[in-house]
Amino acid sequence: MPELDRGLFGGIFTRGGADTSDAAWLQAMLDAEAGLARALERAGLAPAGSGGEVTRAAIAADFDAAELGRISTLTGNPVPGLVRALTRKVAGPAAGAVHRGAASQDIIDTAAMLLARQALEAATADLEAAAAAAANLASSHRGTVMIGRTLLQQAVPVTFGVVAAGWLAGLDAAIDGLRRAREERLAVQFGGAVGTLASLGADGARVKALLARELGLPDPPLPWHTERLRIIDVATAMARVTAALSPVARNITLLAQTEVAEVQTRAHAQAHAQVQAHAHGHAQVQAQVQAHGQAQAHGQAQAVPRRGAPSAMPNKANPIAAVAILGCARQVPGLLATLVASAEQEHQRAAGAWHAEWQPFGDILRLGGSAAAWAGDLLGGLQVDTARCAANLAAAGGLPLAEHVTALLATALGGPQAHEIVATAAARAAASGLPLRDVLLAAPELEGRLRHAGITAAQIEAALDPAGYLGSSGEFVTAALRAHEDRQAPQDRQPRW
Amino acid sequence: MPELDRGLFGGIFTRGGADTSDAAWLQAMLDAEAGLARALERAGLAPAGSGGEVTRAAIAADFDAAELGRISTLTGNPVPGLVRALTRKVAGPAAGAVHRGAASQDIIDTAAMLLARQALEAATADLEAAAAAAANLASSHRGTVMIGRTLLQQAVPVTFGVVAAGWLAGLDAAIDGLRRAREERLAVQFGGAVGTLASLGADGARVKALLARELGLPDPPLPWHTERLRIIDVATAMARVTAALSPVARNITLLAQTEVAEVQTRAHAQAHAQVQAHAHGHAQVQAQVQAHGQAQAHGQAQAVPRRGAPSAMPNKANPIAAVAILGCARQVPGLLATLVASAEQEHQRAAGAWHAEWQPFGDILRLGGSAAAWAGDLLGGLQVDTARCAANLAAAGGLPLAEHVTALLATALGGPQAHEIVATAAARAAASGLPLRDVLLAAPELEGRLRHAGITAAQIEAALDPAGYLGSSGEFVTAALRAHEDRQAPQDRQPRW
Amino acid sequence: MPELDRGLFGGIFTRGGADTSDAAWLQAMLDAEAGLARALERAGLAPAGSGGEVTRAAIAADFDAAELGRISTLTGNPVPGLVRALTRKVAGPAAGAVHRGAASQDIIDTAAMLLARQALEAATADLEAAAAAAANLASSHRGTVMIGRTLLQQAVPVTFGVVAAGWLAGLDAAIDGLRRAREERLAVQFGGAVGTLASLGADGARVKALLARELGLPDPPLPWHTERLRIIDVATAMARVTAALSPVARNITLLAQTEVAEVQTRAHAQAHAQVQAHAHGHAQVQAQVQAHGQAQAHGQAQAVPRRGAPSAMPNKANPIAAVAILGCARQVPGLLATLVASAEQEHQRAAGAWHAEWQPFGDILRLGGSAAAWAGDLLGGLQVDTARCAANLAAAGGLPLAEHVTALLATALGGPQAHEIVATAAARAAASGLPLRDVLLAAPELEGRLRHAGITAAQIEAALDPAGYLGSSGEFVTAALRAHEDRQAPQDRQPRW
Amino acid sequence: MPELDRGLFGGIFTRGGADTSDAAWLQAMLDAEAGLARALERAGLAPAGSGGEVTRAAIAADFDAAELGRISTLTGNPVPGLVRALTRKVAGPAAGAVHRGAASQDIIDTAAMLLARQALEAATADLEAAAAAAANLASSHRGTVMIGRTLLQQAVPVTFGVVAAGWLAGLDAAIDGLRRAREERLAVQFGGAVGTLASLGADGARVKALLARELGLPDPPLPWHTERLRIIDVATAMARVTAALSPVARNITLLAQTEVAEVQTRAHAQAHAQVQAHAHGHAQVQAQVQAHGQAQAHGQAQAVPRRGAPSAMPNKANPIAAVAILGCARQVPGLLATLVASAEQEHQRAAGAWHAEWQPFGDILRLGGSAAAWAGDLLGGLQVDTARCAANLAAAGGLPLAEHVTALLATALGGPQAHEIVATAAARAAASGLPLRDVLLAAPELEGRLRHAGITAAQIEAALDPAGYLGSSGEFVTAALRAHEDRQAPQDRQPRW
Repeated sequence: MPELDRGLFGGIFTRGGADTSDAAWLQAMLDAEAGLARALERAGLAPAGSGGEVTRAAIAADFDAAELGRISTLTGNPVPGLVRALTRKVAGPAAGAVHRGAASQDIIDTAAMLLARQALEAATADLEAAAAAAANLASSHRGTVMIGRTLLQQAVPVTFGVVAAGWLAGLDAAIDGLRRAREERLAVQFGGAVGTLASLGADGARVKALLARELGLPDPPLPWHTERLRIIDVATAMARVTAALSPVARNITLLAQTEVAEVQTRAHAQAHAQVQAHAHGHAQVQAQVQAHGQAQAHGQAQAVPRRGAPSAMPNKANPIAAVAILGCARQVPGLLATLVASAEQEHQRAAGAWHAEWQPFGDILRLGGSAAAWAGDLLGGLQVDTARCAANLAAAGGLPLAEHVTALLATALGGPQAHEIVATAAARAAASGLPLRDVLLAAPELEGRLRHAGITAAQIEAALDPAGYLGSSGEFVTAALRAHEDRQAPQDRQPRW
Repeated sequence: MPELDRGLFGGIFTRGGADTSDAAWLQAMLDAEAGLARALERAGLAPAGSGGEVTRAAIAADFDAAELGRISTLTGNPVPGLVRALTRKVAGPAAGAVHRGAASQDIIDTAAMLLARQALEAATADLEAAAAAAANLASSHRGTVMIGRTLLQQAVPVTFGVVAAGWLAGLDAAIDGLRRAREERLAVQFGGAVGTLASLGADGARVKALLARELGLPDPPLPWHTERLRIIDVATAMARVTAALSPVARNITLLAQTEVAEVQTRAHAQAHAQVQAHAHGHAQVQAQVQAHGQAQAHGQAQAVPRRGAPSAMPNKANPIAAVAILGCARQVPGLLATLVASAEQEHQRAAGAWHAEWQPFGDILRLGGSAAAWAGDLLGGLQVDTARCAANLAAAGGLPLAEHVTALLATALGGPQAHEIVATAAARAAASGLPLRDVLLAAPELEGRLRHAGITAAQIEAALDPAGYLGSSGEFVTAALRAHEDRQAPQDRQPRW
Repeated sequence: MPELDRGLFGGIFTRGGADTSDAAWLQAMLDAEAGLARALERAGLAPAGSGGEVTRAAIAADFDAAELGRISTLTGNPVPGLVRALTRKVAGPAAGAVHRGAASQDIIDTAAMLLARQALEAATADLEAAAAAAANLASSHRGTVMIGRTLLQQAVPVTFGVVAAGWLAGLDAAIDGLRRAREERLAVQFGGAVGTLASLGADGARVKALLARELGLPDPPLPWHTERLRIIDVATAMARVTAALSPVARNITLLAQTEVAEVQTRAHAQAHAQVQAHAHGHAQVQAQVQAHGQAQAHGQAQAVPRRGAPSAMPNKANPIAAVAILGCARQVPGLLATLVASAEQEHQRAAGAWHAEWQPFGDILRLGGSAAAWAGDLLGGLQVDTARCAANLAAAGGLPLAEHVTALLATALGGPQAHEIVATAAARAAASGLPLRDVLLAAPELEGRLRHAGITAAQIEAALDPAGYLGSSGEFVTAALRAHEDRQAPQDRQPRW
Repeated sequence: MPELDRGLFGGIFTRGGADTSDAAWLQAMLDAEAGLARALERAGLAPAGSGGEVTRAAIAADFDAAELGRISTLTGNPVPGLVRALTRKVAGPAAGAVHRGAASQDIIDTAAMLLARQALEAATADLEAAAAAAANLASSHRGTVMIGRTLLQQAVPVTFGVVAAGWLAGLDAAIDGLRRAREERLAVQFGGAVGTLASLGADGARVKALLARELGLPDPPLPWHTERLRIIDVATAMARVTAALSPVARNITLLAQTEVAEVQTRAHAQAHAQVQAHAHGHAQVQAQVQAHGQAQAHGQAQAVPRRGAPSAMPNKANPIAAVAILGCARQVPGLLATLVASAEQEHQRAAGAWHAEWQPFGDILRLGGSAAAWAGDLLGGLQVDTARCAANLAAAGGLPLAEHVTALLATALGGPQAHEIVATAAARAAASGLPLRDVLLAAPELEGRLRHAGITAAQIEAALDPAGYLGSSGEFVTAALRAHEDRQAPQDRQPRW
């Protein structure tokens, strides 16, 4: 199977298993037509062998998408041209089985469902890998203390484990949605001109059921030409993927900032390895560099490509996977809005609103799928720099624990006095650059008040220990991991949406 | 209970049971604070009686929303001001139970969930009423033949029953989503400053569970400060309501057009009744008119208000309920997009993206709820003019059945000849204004060819009977009604969404 | 020049002059690189001949977009791969002029501006043609009376001229916006890694100006890497195109409804001509039909393709151009929202928000351009059926003029009495099916009251003449046409947008 | 004038001069009605004194918005109820001047334009203040060197001046758009039932012009009931405000991060001052603290409220203004999408799409205005910590200048060798924590190669000076400031938008 041509921007936005290219759409439409021919044959409404014959002719590569596109200017969609071309390819009586009973919308909507099935399955697998990586991070960094941040300001400590557990919960919810959409919201579309299947007489509903079986899609109670919740539900499942991933990617770009540096993405890791290779003169990498250099003797100097590393800036290690996820995620809300707005469809076939769905539906499958594919890279390659986490906490000089110290003092002194003492000390600490501990324990008048209240230096120091102010972090990690594991034993699964 | 002040535009956009006014938000925040005080008391972390005392003080009417709004300019959200005001109201030791362990986000998010619960329940009830009306229409108009329309052009016949069955399927899917969101996606929010509940030491997770029980909300495995799929899922459930209703409302505005007139909305019905009253001189209505007239002797003439009837245009009967649903529905996609985009939240509390959710979340609850409330009016009051349906079909002169006649002829003559004969006849019919039947059976050369092929006039006439070209319409109505009934017996319910 | 491959859905959504295919993007990027090489040469920063050499190598067809897409997975965008490939193609010292001083964003943003220029110009030309057609309709149907409709209900009369004048005003406003965007909001992007052009030392600003001159784009005061109003403004100009066209297309689908039939689109006209050809046995068309028939002896019957005409339904004439415009227009709001949201960009280059612009920006150019191209077809081919307009008015039996009659009576009888008489009469007319005139003048007690008030039958009949109740329609047509003509004499142009 | 009740969330989202409350809408509708009465009087169509009488009655506080809201459930909008109530308040013949010739849409659309005028003017003034602050920052920090960042990674140096100059350019473009919308895109709406002003006979266009003059709004060539570009253009002007501000606010949240700390917002400054006050025992502040403490003896400890400072976390100084701007900005794209989508309006009055505009239009005025109001606070209060900027640069150990050193070496050694030397040195520097300078000049084999190439230590050190690698930063600041000043001399203004 040849590698998918993902196009100029495809390296970022067309990763993963969702193929929504013209070729994929065309094949899915042909699969729908072929399935119909087989269903008609099974129903006794087409000659024996028709189904196989149409199926054998229904190969996208044998059709000219550009030509179909041109014809659609006259017909309003590419199906009439496709039907004509397919009919010509099928010699003999089987031609009569082509498209019988169907309307263009039956073919395009069913094709959309076939593309959705593939995309949902691929995204589920990719997101499962990402969730496994998140679970691993949650578990292995259960005790990695770091500063928590609200409104981008340092607040009080958290653990990397509980952060990753939060990511895991989002990923699990997104996976559940993908599974539900796959299992419950796909359906064959087959209703003919106005949703009655009139041209099939009394056989319509039976052919619909057979078509559903041929394609492995659920058979809905009735056609859904202008009832578009299925389209919205598949799109929403993909939007939930990017909604679960966008905070993960956003946080990783923030944690990977040069000034924060608490995580390294795979790019960082690669860059670091390469930096090491340079430093230690690894022969292989140097050879590559030289080969490049010679090949471009008159051009710009260009290093061995590594993900996220601009050649001219050795200090940089761009978190490409996170950036790509954010780039995908930010395109999704608008597309989802288009699809929800397109639900307002007229009578038995919409004048425009249906047409407006085709490309956004493909785009949202593509972008959700790409984000899911990047997520595995991102989380699988994430390295937490625990030393840096600790250093950043230490550099805060105890101020993030002021709340904890206040609570300690309040038990002896009451809230207002406790607050006043700590606020005064914190202010001095901030102004002087001294650790809060030193201010509290070294300033005679403060130290005196504390001693008077029966608060010991050891108590103060314990209150200033970040590892002692993590509340229920451990329990939360455990709960998220347990919920994750429960999900994977579907027989016990509680409905969770 | 005083009637809700719904505001200047509220008659249209704030119907139904969802109250997302400032007063409702304030009460929900206070309910969250009160629930927390009770939970702390149960956990042994607050003095006996604290919970009751805080609960008694937590009455929205006793707080000044405008003042809280002003304070929030300094604090970034209204909770700190609310906590201060609530603390002041609570005398004695119970004050220590106010807001203990909580962050502002815990209160606002939990309040959002409480508002969501009310809104989801109200919308479910309203939509059930609308679905019942749709089921009734599907059932009683199973045999009402009307012209089907695609791209706003007449196509082939359908029944009103199968149209209403399609609406029913959408409504049922929307109700399922509301139920799922209500049962599976609500949750208490309680995590403190950074999601660890550190200030509660080892008691955090236990208080969280108790708070959930106090408020009747599910207890999530861990706080979800920056994992926002719950917000999105509730919003999506509401967006699915408007997505299910918008095609219904759109179609009713189209069917109610003066030139089509196949349905009358309640406004029509009222207008008709009033017209009759005028015509027949009903004393009461005339008295009302006169009373108005005298009261406004120098003003404009103004009739008794009836829904949708502009006083100056007796020919008009505006389908207000349908218009209101469309007005609600068209605001929803943009709001949903805002909420999905807001999922990209930083670290342990977002700088802006969280804040951006508050009003759109309330708006989407309000608009989805309003649309659901209008839907009962719309479908409950819908009258199908079966005579007009038949007349519109008859006026089409048989052209919508040309496809059926072609199929009949093709059995004897083959497709191409059949098509040519019918196309010729249809062209003549269109050009002359004669019914297709007359052209087919009266033109000697056509009549001759048909006779030669063994096609009888009775066969032609049967093929031209709309009631004979309805395909699986009846089966589809049955299937939709059965699916609707199955839904209502939850013990047998199959997962469907 | 080979015809553009517009793809499977391109017949609908990729018409017009905007080319935003991968090939077009690639060429625009290469044009930016070539322009830079020439600018560097002019600035004395690259060897003589470099500019020409790079320009000659910068031919998109010689590059492999798919390969560049694959490389971009490592680099985050396709430019580094493109630069490497281009450098390889340029032998000798000119290679040093490739990409010198530039960052990837400079190339992609400048390429976007080049694509925008082409798209804005093409859309302007297409929309001018549509506006000319609208002006022609406004002028030639200044006196064509038809029923006006509000909330899809018949109201009081309008002229087709004033309807078209309203369309014209919207089109003119959209054209103004396209011109402004073209003239004022395009700009070269050139800032290097962080917007300082540091690697060019003191020469940066000068090279920027030379690059702008080479490419024929304005030279902005400073780079705009994370100031994205230009992107938004171009996108908005296109969104205004679809916002001006969507009501036109919507109204035409409504007026073309089988039951209304006040306009025919080109499809209708074609269909009508074909129907006539069938009816009168035109040899050529019949031959075509037969040829088709024979070619598909075993297949489905398929008529000669004409725009909008499904083969099986001779009664249908789908308004494809209007449907296509609506299909384009409905995709635009979501894309615009994505671009506006993407303005939130970090520091000197955004992590995701910039990347999220690439495809939506291309899509909005493509869709706005397609809608503009369809608009010429739609308005150029529109035929107003004045007889049907008159017939629809007549069928309303005078009810739309009730307001006018009331005003007449009020002068003699006062508002309340006038209103009561007309309401009574209108109710009787509606109930009986009689024209309002007959009810008013034939019912003895009404006729008596009117006579008593000195109102003559001739006055009543005049008040019931639609042509006498058109208010300022004529003046409004004149004003819109004058504004349209003023626009086309730019020297006199007042700022209008 | 009483302070505006901005509601519970209003401190964040309802700042600035735009009042879009129910009361403001009601007054604007009444202003439109009053203006119409005066216009009718001037036109000789209403008795002398009518205009004054209606104007005196048109006081919003005398009407019951909630009651009007309830009535609108029957009428589809609040105007019929308002007209009835206003008519009742006006005794005598002036009552006949109320609403004469108008449709509800005329009143609501004109009211929207009046609200827009106020909002555009207020936002312009607020944004001018913000732009002045940005200009001041650009000018005074022209020489403040700081690290530039791309994809949130340190890259090469910039100046704070050029960063602020970029902000200024965006703000200026946004102000231009506000002015244009104010001057060119507002218009009175007056067309009567269907846009013909039929009920005013030949006087319609004249009354329209007089109404425009009374209200100080432009007089459009014809009514624009279903041509909605004006609504979109006003909304876009506001969306451009938030699009210009969102990157500013985003960057300030990033620069204010605890770990970066290159700027302090007013909150920081206040917090710092307070910390100092605590530290130095300022009597007044301590008194406040004590007063609070005593008042809340049993409650939680609560500090003097200062913007952005959570009482329990002395280390935090939340950038509230920036967060508020982001919170406003993120709601705008979805609202704009709703308004653009609502342009698809039917015939002479839309069934739903018009109604869907009312609240989003008000919301976008409100949010754009709030963001503009916050922007003055944000930029006016911004303090740049130049020492911290320098320290952050120094901490990077010269790596951001590696590109510059490479360029220096390339002149003597050619690109590939230069690149290799610097890459090796950078890798060692990163691995060892030594400054790049030390690695380059201290490592014998590197130092030897450099000496051999004639590169001196002084040259290396110069290349490593950030102040020497700023390219055209100064010119760009000058250009942006000049463009800003040119804008303020409107007589010389070139079209720029």
